[in-house]
Amino acid sequence: MPSEFERIARFVRHFPIRSRSVLAGPGDDCAVTRPRPGHVLVSKVDQLVEGVHFGPAFLPEEIGHKALAVALSDLAAAGATPRWFLVAIAHPPELDVAFLERMAKGMAHLARRAGIELVGGNFSRASELSVAVTALGEAPPARVLGRSGARPSDWILVSGTLGEAALGLRRLASGRPRRIDAAIRAQLRPTPRLELGAILGRYASAAIDLSDGLLQDLGHVCARSGVGAELFATALPVRPAVRREGLELALAGGEDYEILCTAPPQRARALLAAARRRGIPLARIGVVRATSGIRLLDERGEPMPLPVRGGWEHFA
Amino acid sequence: MPSEFERIARFVRHFPIRSRSVLAGPGDDCAVTRPRPGHVLVSKVDQLVEGVHFGPAFLPEEIGHKALAVALSDLAAAGATPRWFLVAIAHPPELDVAFLERMAKGMAHLARRAGIELVGGNFSRASELSVAVTALGEAPPARVLGRSGARPSDWILVSGTLGEAALGLRRLASGRPRRIDAAIRAQLRPTPRLELGAILGRYASAAIDLSDGLLQDLGHVCARSGVGAELFATALPVRPAVRREGLELALAGGEDYEILCTAPPQRARALLAAARRRGIPLARIGVVRATSGIRLLDERGEPMPLPVRGGWEHFA
Repeated sequence: MPSEFERIARFVRHFPIRSRSVLAGPGDDCAVTRPRPGHVLVSKVDQLVEGVHFGPAFLPEEIGHKALAVALSDLAAAGATPRWFLVAIAHPPELDVAFLERMAKGMAHLARRAGIELVGGNFSRASELSVAVTALGEAPPARVLGRSGARPSDWILVSGTLGEAALGLRRLASGRPRRIDAAIRAQLRPTPRLELGAILGRYASAAIDLSDGLLQDLGHVCARSGVGAELFATALPVRPAVRREGLELALAGGEDYEILCTAPPQRARALLAAARRRGIPLARIGVVRATSGIRLLDERGEPMPLPVRGGWEHFA
Repeated sequence: MPSEFERIARFVRHFPIRSRSVLAGPGDDCAVTRPRPGHVLVSKVDQLVEGVHFGPAFLPEEIGHKALAVALSDLAAAGATPRWFLVAIAHPPELDVAFLERMAKGMAHLARRAGIELVGGNFSRASELSVAVTALGEAPPARVLGRSGARPSDWILVSGTLGEAALGLRRLASGRPRRIDAAIRAQLRPTPRLELGAILGRYASAAIDLSDGLLQDLGHVCARSGVGAELFATALPVRPAVRREGLELALAGGEDYEILCTAPPQRARALLAAARRRGIPLARIGVVRATSGIRLLDERGEPMPLPVRGGWEHFA
């Protein structure tokens, strides 16, 4: 059986260090990295666990990709530039080293695209496979976004389309099909909105990535900002395949990893234009209100009933 | 069953944010922290898994303590000042919230002592309990220590005593006894050498914390520094209870979380004196040599056989 050190070596060689900001990385006990003066550090830890966040339908490359993608999605929503990451992998001793290497490949491919470098990690035995990624990014202090900046009359914008990953999860219930459609791809290979994250800080007042479902994540923004929201049902970016399953999928389906943000109208218009120029799908789906609570409005502006289920909850 | 958000709230309230370096912490998606200008970031992830790093003999407070302690130990060996940490906890849904709170208490107590603040985290379902801690510290660039700085004729120093935690593990094999002796305490409640870490950067040429056993960890320093080492068997700081079980425990027993460091003779003497003034146990146990390999010498300076087992290996 390959030793711990061989496992580390085989994993790490997929992540060559290229930037001069990394003074010590994999192979040292601690990573030593040089922050940019005048920037703040933005950090996030996310963990994927076998049977909870990924199932047998996932290829090893997809597990590696998704583990990094979900953390990058949070950095993007914060308007932070991805810099470095650490990964803690726990797995059954009998897990093949080739499996680990394929995980590394999927993760490394995304890391290169995102310009983020692996600087540390930990391997441990466990009875099930899990991958915890801590992603570190930087941003100018005035440009970091969080949940708390939304103000009444701000527009609510969302990237991409909603409910895809949740539909994909349903379609994967009976195993990995031959044909990987858009919904299944959204579940297996969520794409963090890095390009949007790179410009978001100039325009938005608050932002969050959609991991637990639109209603729940918008609810977090509203709660922290002390505001409410109106959503325009007809403006929600939902593909027909999702709409056929019911709007609940778009409102409460988790793992979209799209970005929801708010911005004052003029800045929101400028952000929509900037996104359009870059080919980033971004749509206005509602408006922030002073009155608390989230209301769904139909095409005539009349309130509609909300689906009962609020979003993904780990211990429900 | 308490919701994910209640679990987070109950855990997080044990970690009030006190420092102004934290701009966004628990409750936000990303932590936002302000690095000190002119400092580099030192980061480390460590994970404890049920049945591997802790067993039924551990109290919840001790699991929380140990999860943070092992990461702090690495920061101390790097000569870094602990600043912020993130924690990813995976656990069976039926795990009691009171258990989580007791884990938080044990972790919070150590965090306060270390001056490190919880800024982010993640809860997930899993079939077994695991805790991954990412610790972030800072240091002036010229003072960060790693594995690669040891030079021939440097003295080899080690803090505390060796083999305690491994002896403690043996004593815990039949369950938690009424009387918690020094060895059992070393296993249940390892104490990171924070005070030593705070001064180490001024004196040492290389350092590592002892997690996998003296021979293996010293071997890492030698390999990365391109040197060898001579250890003085009679100089090893070993309590009689450990010595009775055989020197192997001191040489290859894991989880001591003491600091092994090297320094040129004059600086080593100054470090020994500085440690003595602060009441930190630190002993000279050997010397760095140009010839590769680790040799154990008896009281007459004659080579002695080394124990076969090299140290802790996760997938052995």
